[in-house]
Amino acid sequence: MKVPVIKRILDAQERIAAELKQLFDEKGILVINLMSSPGAGKTSILEKTIEALKDKLRLAVIEGDVQTSLDAERIARYGILTVQINTYGACHIDGNMVKEALPDLNLDEIDILFVENVGNLVCPAEFKVGEDYKVMILSVPEGDDKPAKYPLMFRESSVLLINKIDLLPFLECDLEKINKEALKVNPHLKNFPVSAKTGEGLEGWYDWLIEAFKAKNHEKKN
Amino acid sequence: MKVPVIKRILDAQERIAAELKQLFDEKGILVINLMSSPGAGKTSILEKTIEALKDKLRLAVIEGDVQTSLDAERIARYGILTVQINTYGACHIDGNMVKEALPDLNLDEIDILFVENVGNLVCPAEFKVGEDYKVMILSVPEGDDKPAKYPLMFRESSVLLINKIDLLPFLECDLEKINKEALKVNPHLKNFPVSAKTGEGLEGWYDWLIEAFKAKNHEKKN
Repeated sequence: MKVPVIKRILDAQERIAAELKQLFDEKGILVINLMSSPGAGKTSILEKTIEALKDKLRLAVIEGDVQTSLDAERIARYGILTVQINTYGACHIDGNMVKEALPDLNLDEIDILFVENVGNLVCPAEFKVGEDYKVMILSVPEGDDKPAKYPLMFRESSVLLINKIDLLPFLECDLEKINKEALKVNPHLKNFPVSAKTGEGLEGWYDWLIEAFKAKNHEKKN
Repeated sequence: MKVPVIKRILDAQERIAAELKQLFDEKGILVINLMSSPGAGKTSILEKTIEALKDKLRLAVIEGDVQTSLDAERIARYGILTVQINTYGACHIDGNMVKEALPDLNLDEIDILFVENVGNLVCPAEFKVGEDYKVMILSVPEGDDKPAKYPLMFRESSVLLINKIDLLPFLECDLEKINKEALKVNPHLKNFPVSAKTGEGLEGWYDWLIEAFKAKNHEKKN
């Protein structure tokens, strides 16, 4: 009895996500679904990204948290349009939640919309929120065995940001192993070792975002 | 239509967990449900705990992972009875999965059973697996804002192990803030700052386990 119910919910989820994707496509908005474990650095990387790109592109952020608006407050400080979704127990953001956030977003004035998911390396990978790309962060203190242990998120993601590389000298964590294991799970995964603290490696990520935005809007115009 | 379905599943979950609890109580087994984010150090702390206690108490481990048996292999090396549960997508261990593992456990020869949950700071807190205590690990690289952001796990846990304190000199993470915020969410939370790497602080955790086992069996005999 259980499986059909779950399937029905997932079907509705797929439909809502497809509707959102169509809406964002029409508006030429690049949508990034940003996922990681708790504390891997989603908000810190967003802060750096906003600092780097806010004068070139119009950015907006949907902040997902089980509760609190701590991260939304961090982001709003940069003068960026920020909407908070509190999931109250749910372990991921789904399309319905993003749909509810739409009235608070002026879609005609956004180039890139970041959806910062709930900190969770499992469930968010299973749900679409209308995104163009899933981007995941793995922080090096989490260890180099994560691609093998949580393969779905690595498989679903287009970009992997390996964060906190400034801590590598103090850890037993093999960056090359992460890279190799991640590519074994997903040969198309684009990989950027970065430090949100020092800024190291982030230029490549900014360039990737700008290119992805340009490519999307080039497609749109042709 | 959705809510009743979820409630029905949760009711069944509660019943299975209660049955498991009764069985473990009859056998005098202390059951610990060990939870944390991915890479916070569940397996490393289990390894240290096994080293310290295996000559005093009969230990067994149920290893929960989305897939792979990497952690179970690490534990089995210590000559401890180890059962692997692969959840294949599920983001937590539930009572049904533990029930399926029972035929592989000789309950008459176990003093403490550790259930190492899937790495996830959200969902595992919502499910019981027949445990006496939920024990959570937070590692300091995850940041000191986690009690406010993931309160359910802090609320449901009896013990908080704050791991990787050897990294504190290299991080902006306030141990006192974690402690204070965690106690705000759960005033009864027992708190041990530890390092699975150096062994610092783990004695208190071992003593807590021994006392909890003694208390459970004292209760049983009276």
